[in-house]
Amino acid sequence: MAKTDWKSKAKKLKKKLVQLKAEMELRVQDAAATVVATLAPAHPKAAKPKAGIKVSPLAPKGGFPKLPAIAGAEFAAVEAGVKYKNRKDVMLVRLAPGTSIAGVFTKSSTRAACVHDCQAKLAMKAPEGAGAAIIVNSGNSNAFTGALGQQSVDAVTGSVAEALGIPSARVFSSSTGVIGEPLPHKRITAVIDDLVAGLQNDAVDMAAQAIMTTDTFPKGSAATVQGEGGTIHISGIAKGSGMIAPDMATMLVYIFTDAKIAPAALQRMLSRNVDSTFNAITVDSDTSTSDALLLCATGQSPAAALKGAYAKTFETALHGVMLDLAKQVTRDGEGATKLVEIQITGAATPNDAHLAAMAIANSPLVKTAIAGEDANWGRVVMAIGKSGAQADRDKLSIRFGDLVVAENGWRSPGYSEESTAAYMKNQELVIGVDMGLGKAAKTVWTCDLTHGYIDINADYRS
Amino acid sequence: MAKTDWKSKAKKLKKKLVQLKAEMELRVQDAAATVVATLAPAHPKAAKPKAGIKVSPLAPKGGFPKLPAIAGAEFAAVEAGVKYKNRKDVMLVRLAPGTSIAGVFTKSSTRAACVHDCQAKLAMKAPEGAGAAIIVNSGNSNAFTGALGQQSVDAVTGSVAEALGIPSARVFSSSTGVIGEPLPHKRITAVIDDLVAGLQNDAVDMAAQAIMTTDTFPKGSAATVQGEGGTIHISGIAKGSGMIAPDMATMLVYIFTDAKIAPAALQRMLSRNVDSTFNAITVDSDTSTSDALLLCATGQSPAAALKGAYAKTFETALHGVMLDLAKQVTRDGEGATKLVEIQITGAATPNDAHLAAMAIANSPLVKTAIAGEDANWGRVVMAIGKSGAQADRDKLSIRFGDLVVAENGWRSPGYSEESTAAYMKNQELVIGVDMGLGKAAKTVWTCDLTHGYIDINADYRS
Repeated sequence: MAKTDWKSKAKKLKKKLVQLKAEMELRVQDAAATVVATLAPAHPKAAKPKAGIKVSPLAPKGGFPKLPAIAGAEFAAVEAGVKYKNRKDVMLVRLAPGTSIAGVFTKSSTRAACVHDCQAKLAMKAPEGAGAAIIVNSGNSNAFTGALGQQSVDAVTGSVAEALGIPSARVFSSSTGVIGEPLPHKRITAVIDDLVAGLQNDAVDMAAQAIMTTDTFPKGSAATVQGEGGTIHISGIAKGSGMIAPDMATMLVYIFTDAKIAPAALQRMLSRNVDSTFNAITVDSDTSTSDALLLCATGQSPAAALKGAYAKTFETALHGVMLDLAKQVTRDGEGATKLVEIQITGAATPNDAHLAAMAIANSPLVKTAIAGEDANWGRVVMAIGKSGAQADRDKLSIRFGDLVVAENGWRSPGYSEESTAAYMKNQELVIGVDMGLGKAAKTVWTCDLTHGYIDINADYRS
Repeated sequence: MAKTDWKSKAKKLKKKLVQLKAEMELRVQDAAATVVATLAPAHPKAAKPKAGIKVSPLAPKGGFPKLPAIAGAEFAAVEAGVKYKNRKDVMLVRLAPGTSIAGVFTKSSTRAACVHDCQAKLAMKAPEGAGAAIIVNSGNSNAFTGALGQQSVDAVTGSVAEALGIPSARVFSSSTGVIGEPLPHKRITAVIDDLVAGLQNDAVDMAAQAIMTTDTFPKGSAATVQGEGGTIHISGIAKGSGMIAPDMATMLVYIFTDAKIAPAALQRMLSRNVDSTFNAITVDSDTSTSDALLLCATGQSPAAALKGAYAKTFETALHGVMLDLAKQVTRDGEGATKLVEIQITGAATPNDAHLAAMAIANSPLVKTAIAGEDANWGRVVMAIGKSGAQADRDKLSIRFGDLVVAENGWRSPGYSEESTAAYMKNQELVIGVDMGLGKAAKTVWTCDLTHGYIDINADYRS
């Protein structure tokens, strides 16, 4: 008897904990929303579209934002001709001694050599007082390149280490582009002196350009928060457009801050904000072999080391920057013409909420209906049905924006084909689903599936 | 000590069992291949494309096969105008008293009213000596139609029961088409007398036409096997083109045979052949709310009741018909221009083999590469990596047809861009992946992702 009671007690506690976590996520998102509003204004001169590339219609209206310089972080980018011609394709970041670095990476079992290398290096304790660096190339992902993959990573990071006089264990690298082609790493090592010579503090926008592949616009986001005794800045950049269904980390993302914070605390903060940001977006359900997100804190702000309420404020701002970058990746989804926010509420468990949200966000039939501006909520029902999430037809309610289209297992009595059709013409859409079963919630972002996606991917490699 | 030994013993046995099951699947497939070769030849007059509908380039070259009449099964189809105009959209099958019926259905949690109804009726014991019937409409799926959904099912099946003088518990129904619109069931009940008047033994091809929605050709398959003391016939029809990622059953499939076999044995035989046939195909990863497969054995063959070697031969033939119909559905995948067979071998477990196969078969990036005739095996690596299946980069080997493109964690030394590019021009392709880890295997079928899929689905509802 006593045994059974303990079991049910534990179950109830577990359930409560799970509901609490879901509530917390929503609250963090709410909180982040207020910080996003204070993000940096657009940089008037940046983000001019390249000749011949059609910028996504969903690109942020203001162009690339003016990102604050981060004391202790310097940037450079050059043309190395790894694959692309006549564009900057390698970027270098030098980070001052004492910089804390945290990272999250793809969980793919066929991940690239540079991802394995970053993970191994982050697991080691950083040598006292050593600086650090990040080097990134576009055009070739150095994934599925056998033993040669690690040799290329060693050649590139070793070369950077020598040029900057830092341990190679503190040089992190990423590669993005085609899978399975040997990385011509000599093209990269040949330009390292030029990169080092070009390092400057206020050039993060150049780095954002250099890491693009099928991206149609560079992605940046920033926030400034008041620390204890001084201002703290956050500047982040990202690339990503296709092969986007991050699993634990995503694409290539680099976020820099002058905050003072120890590596372990920085890692914990990063990890707990990934699920509601980069792991909450999808373009095509395909998970990259190269996803990497590095967060670097130089500690050069005059503000005191983060703790208490200051740490919370900083984390909220960091979440805002991460969410903003994640949504920009979705806005640049290959072929995308509409940005869609899927809001699940009332799910029985957080996992159910996640399953239902991702099933809708990844459904080719839902995504093509959106491309066709068809309020086909029947396909939303289908996606929920196949998701594996606990669902009860008669308790579901579905809305497009504020328009309730289905409830009580049935088309809503107030449904109007005309007004939902008019709503579908918007460039940004919200599909809301209340499961009517519990308190768990999840919000994810996706884009539509159009002819543009087929055009881009039916001949990307050639 | 003894306790631990038992545990490892059990584990080893479990592993062996699992490997054995995988081997068995391959053997059944091999065996089935020989029966498929003896399938009915194409019916010279059937399967003329409708005006204005472009038949899939992957449609079987011979057109609709000549399906043998099944003693005890009669068919009729009429125009009821449920949604489509000027085409037969309702079909009726009358089955003789004593017919055994087995079924498998979608596992969707938002499945249609008629699916729930079939499941409930199959769970009941059939009244002694009662006949049975199946009525199917296209154009409206009667899914997510609230309480009215079951009322429509009751009206239609009750009406058939009355007209044929059989219990309504023996009238099974399916509906396929748009989700969430009320089924105008009076249009169906109004034509039941016409259907009954038109019933004839040799008209299964008419039924195959009436259940089409976005299908571009009707799907049929047949086999004839020698029973103990007489011949046994199998005739099957199917519909399906989009929203195809069956989960336990699939689409609408009706298979008829004159074999003598009890309902429970028939159900077991059906269930054990679904995973390697209908559950092994995918068009777009979206699972229908209406998937249903009914297998009806009238028992009117002069052959004795199935048992022993005769039962095995029959099951092999049945598997062949099921696989043929499943592949025809894939051949009619919305917008498809290429049929792709994904063969996984050497996986650690059957579940790993299934995960890897389906991840490749459903990857939008793999499917668009195939549409573009690009031998982009890097995307196959990516799909394996994200699949969740146990994988070791250095043990994978990947081939396109007979051309090994990657092995030992690296592009194959014998790789030739020219010959793989030439291979990709074929209409039917094989992607083979040996995981190099164990003995589990799985073969699945998919199609490419083209502009045609977007065209069809961006305005299907309107």
